[in-house]
Amino acid sequence: MPLSEAQSSPVTSNQATGEDALAALMSLVAEDLEACNRLIVARMHSPVALIPQIGAHIVAAGGKRLRPLLTLAAARLGGYSEGQRHVALASCIEFIHTATLLHDDVVDESALRRGQASANALFGNQASVLVGDFLFARAFELMVEDGSLEVLGILSGASATIAEGEVLQLITQNDTSSTEEQYLAVIEGKTAALFAASAEVGAIVAGCPPAQQKALRAYGHNLGVAFQLIDDALDYSATQESLGKTVGDDFREGKITLPVLLAFQRGTAEERDFWRRTLEEGDQTEADLPRAIALMQKHHAFADTVGRAQAYGDASLAGLDLFPDGEARRALAGIVAFCISRAR
Amino acid sequence: MPLSEAQSSPVTSNQATGEDALAALMSLVAEDLEACNRLIVARMHSPVALIPQIGAHIVAAGGKRLRPLLTLAAARLGGYSEGQRHVALASCIEFIHTATLLHDDVVDESALRRGQASANALFGNQASVLVGDFLFARAFELMVEDGSLEVLGILSGASATIAEGEVLQLITQNDTSSTEEQYLAVIEGKTAALFAASAEVGAIVAGCPPAQQKALRAYGHNLGVAFQLIDDALDYSATQESLGKTVGDDFREGKITLPVLLAFQRGTAEERDFWRRTLEEGDQTEADLPRAIALMQKHHAFADTVGRAQAYGDASLAGLDLFPDGEARRALAGIVAFCISRAR
Repeated sequence: MPLSEAQSSPVTSNQATGEDALAALMSLVAEDLEACNRLIVARMHSPVALIPQIGAHIVAAGGKRLRPLLTLAAARLGGYSEGQRHVALASCIEFIHTATLLHDDVVDESALRRGQASANALFGNQASVLVGDFLFARAFELMVEDGSLEVLGILSGASATIAEGEVLQLITQNDTSSTEEQYLAVIEGKTAALFAASAEVGAIVAGCPPAQQKALRAYGHNLGVAFQLIDDALDYSATQESLGKTVGDDFREGKITLPVLLAFQRGTAEERDFWRRTLEEGDQTEADLPRAIALMQKHHAFADTVGRAQAYGDASLAGLDLFPDGEARRALAGIVAFCISRAR
Repeated sequence: MPLSEAQSSPVTSNQATGEDALAALMSLVAEDLEACNRLIVARMHSPVALIPQIGAHIVAAGGKRLRPLLTLAAARLGGYSEGQRHVALASCIEFIHTATLLHDDVVDESALRRGQASANALFGNQASVLVGDFLFARAFELMVEDGSLEVLGILSGASATIAEGEVLQLITQNDTSSTEEQYLAVIEGKTAALFAASAEVGAIVAGCPPAQQKALRAYGHNLGVAFQLIDDALDYSATQESLGKTVGDDFREGKITLPVLLAFQRGTAEERDFWRRTLEEGDQTEADLPRAIALMQKHHAFADTVGRAQAYGDASLAGLDLFPDGEARRALAGIVAFCISRAR
């Protein structure tokens, strides 16, 4: 089901622009990204064969490598041109991200991830928990090899914040009385923290002055919030093929995302009963997901979620103002357009 | 059921000696241990209330704090007397250990831990996975505050090795054809790696020369192997009260530990069928655990496991030879006796 209301939203970039922007970024750092992918495979190695097997499954499943791309492009924007520190740290950020994906899928009991059977569905929850732990530890080994305590501080802090966001999500799940403020804290933790760290680490590697580090961190943070807002809209509005995971997962799990909060706030008493029955009591029939989507459309929940994402996207762009115009800045700006345009 | 055969093993220390030894160590570093416990509570803090709640549950459940004790005593042995680095790093080692316990209980579906309901039984698997992730990240934040890349390298390496050991254990589970070599690799990973790191970190804080660091690391490694061998014997031979967890857990989960391997190797064809049915096929009746224990006694599997532990204990003691006699060395030697004497 297309996100039809998004057409009336303030989003101006169309899908072609979004994909062009991603392509431009990938081409700008193509060599670095390849080196990063090679390093990911190499450092996934372990004498315990199941670990690289699960690792290969995840690497093969693809993913856009958005977070490592941010690190690579931010380092480029900051003028980093010699050395491979940005590649090593981009890999370690992808390890952290992959570890959280493995654990998320266990927590959510997801069957699909990036359009393929999820690792927990294929290899079991036990292996997913333990291989996630391995990848997390391996990420810190890579950071130690890099040798920057500043980077170690940023990424250990981000990792703790991610876990806090995930726990808060667990607590507010199935609770229609949870607030927009709590929702924002959840997505700032589970998503924006690592986006922010990814961009900031690039700035640090490049030796940017503190104001520029802070600006790139803000860029990443706001981009991360925008990205997750769009993700949460897509969970109700995308087709399964385009989403690469099961549509309606959030609904079935009773996750309280912004589209739900808006439809609930604006709903009639009878509609609120519907949300309570389906999300709090988990009492759902086949007809309920289409009804949830119809209610969101009725109350402009999609358009307003996308509008909110656009506002964060604009804030994200402002973080780039400190840097001179050029290929790298345009590529990072394009990523904002890409993230928002996924909702078209 | 007491580990009766152990009385014919080469273990010479009696239970009183073991407990006296633990008490002597705890009294030697009593102030440091208290500071460590305070720091654990303080740094478990998070605005997400469920995190300190689960943390408090684990802290309240006690545990002997063996690993932090090793760090504190090793630092003392190395002559460290000023500063609180050993306390901070001992806390972070306990955080790593607690994170692995939370994840282990999810992987093993354990109902009891240290004689109380396990966190996964009380708070659910999802919270246990995520709070484990938080504690692991928090441990690295503490290490970054300490600021030693050497310590960060040791503990990130140990964390990866622990996860590898746990994955190997998962793979060899329910497989009676797995080998003693694989079993040893499992316990070296899941247990000995953090014991070794705990002692080594104490030596590093104290500024010990490399040979002494290596010796304390070897002390911890061999102690860890001895500790786990005894643990695996106790899983079949202890009473539930003394064990603090469900007796027979390993049997029900089909874990292939040394007592099983010895009884299987030495068993008749009919006995091997019994092991295959119960451990590989998981087809168990109430009479099977007593029969497993009887077979282990018949084949001297307990005595030989304890004997093996004693040999590792002796190797562990040899690691202390480089240090002058004194309270700290005697306390660390006493821990070896304590670990072995648990099997009495």
